Amino acid sequence: MMKIAEKQIEVRYAETDQMGVVYHANYLIWMEVGRTELIKQLGFHYADMEKEGIISPVIDLHVSYKKPLHYGETATIKTWIEAYDGIRVTYGYEIFTPNGELAVTGRSQHVCVKRDSFRPIVIRKYFPDWHEAYERAKK
Amino acid sequence: MMKIAEKQIEVRYAETDQMGVVYHANYLIWMEVGRTELIKQLGFHYADMEKEGIISPVIDLHVSYKKPLHYGETATIKTWIEAYDGIRVTYGYEIFTPNGELAVTGRSQHVCVKRDSFRPIVIRKYFPDWHEAYERAKK
Amino acid sequence: MMKIAEKQIEVRYAETDQMGVVYHANYLIWMEVGRTELIKQLGFHYADMEKEGIISPVIDLHVSYKKPLHYGETATIKTWIEAYDGIRVTYGYEIFTPNGELAVTGRSQHVCVKRDSFRPIVIRKYFPDWHEAYERAKK
Amino acid sequence: MMKIAEKQIEVRYAETDQMGVVYHANYLIWMEVGRTELIKQLGFHYADMEKEGIISPVIDLHVSYKKPLHYGETATIKTWIEAYDGIRVTYGYEIFTPNGELAVTGRSQHVCVKRDSFRPIVIRKYFPDWHEAYERAKK
Repeated sequence: MMKIAEKQIEVRYAETDQMGVVYHANYLIWMEVGRTELIKQLGFHYADMEKEGIISPVIDLHVSYKKPLHYGETATIKTWIEAYDGIRVTYGYEIFTPNGELAVTGRSQHVCVKRDSFRPIVIRKYFPDWHEAYERAKK
Repeated sequence: MMKIAEKQIEVRYAETDQMGVVYHANYLIWMEVGRTELIKQLGFHYADMEKEGIISPVIDLHVSYKKPLHYGETATIKTWIEAYDGIRVTYGYEIFTPNGELAVTGRSQHVCVKRDSFRPIVIRKYFPDWHEAYERAKK
Repeated sequence: MMKIAEKQIEVRYAETDQMGVVYHANYLIWMEVGRTELIKQLGFHYADMEKEGIISPVIDLHVSYKKPLHYGETATIKTWIEAYDGIRVTYGYEIFTPNGELAVTGRSQHVCVKRDSFRPIVIRKYFPDWHEAYERAKK
Repeated sequence: MMKIAEKQIEVRYAETDQMGVVYHANYLIWMEVGRTELIKQLGFHYADMEKEGIISPVIDLHVSYKKPLHYGETATIKTWIEAYDGIRVTYGYEIFTPNGELAVTGRSQHVCVKRDSFRPIVIRKYFPDWHEAYERAKK
């Protein structure tokens, strides 16, 4: 059954630019906050994966910007597993304004690699408990 | 004739994360540095557009990450106009490692809007000289 | 009576650098989050000040770094008004690790200026209600 | 004889905030760019120090903000060794506007620590060649 994690994010002043709205690159940071939250709600911690020498870089990213967000507002980010095949994970994201309007949608694709060599590993084999949780939670 | 702007960027320590490589959102900032350079090479300054109350937000973004970059390295970013129709501009980007390997590719689509209302304007009418330059320089 | 605002901050992955800890400049952003919270607890919103064309830039800053913070940890930031004279405000900050150890201490001094000219204004006259609240809340 | 490294920095759009000027925390990143340049001009690379498992965190920081900088401007940052005692290094910084006006002054104090334990090392013993260069170059 598809799992959707929800997280509130207060816009920081530092996140604005001279357009007077949140600078577009900062939504990627929020998407990572959303990912961290989803993984936590699945019962894991990304920091633990790194302790085993595995990191999970983004390999592909798509973002669509619909409404700007402003300092003083609280955004809501929803994060889910859009696709997963035992090796690659694609997360989906929706970010909402305080009025519930859709501000940003996104997708990011990740692999797991060894920190030292950046060589990919098979999640299904390396982290079987993560694998099962991802299988169950995906769209 | 297609114009490609080239710009060298020294990786800053602040741009790394605990993976030991450039944090993925920072490439968007470099893409903006590339855009600024391309516009300058076309004979304009983005800051001048803003002085007339027009801003040019990103509405769509696609990034593909192929090789990581590290602190101490100098990247090269190439930027060009992938598409332009008088209203929307799509920029294309390639970022290279010091060895000339392709590290990141990207595309970003922009419109021009009034700063106060975020209502779109027609570049062809509002900035006819930019329009001509974009027509000539596009892919 | 001195007012101390307290705020929890979850460390974001993007806030780390290749030392594996929070990059030192990011604590300044947290200090701003602390300031925003303190002002809110005093009954005001900084965003409202800006709507009147007044901004409040930092003019002086001191930070002392004692313990590093890590991704996955939740920090606590305490913020108070260290000094206030009707024109200049000095905020004080303490940031704590999840174990309650002191990680960072800081101070920042601010004035209020007109956004267009960066010319200083007298808070006492321009925002008498803020002035009173600051007088009451300061150390 | 005191060595002063000079470096030009083009203001990035991402570095501005809704005040319309460079966000104050970003000057710390420029100060690090200045440090990297100074170390390079002394014949070393900070990245090499880290390859030996040693990092050099900031322990104390003071910044004074005098004039704002804007997108489209090129700043100049001067960096030197303000003090050095074989264990702690204090760097001094001056950042100038395109008109040569003083925009920001700063100081940052650093130690060298083992990456794994954050335990301090004595630079004089651990990196005798850096030590000599720092002794010669300091104010």
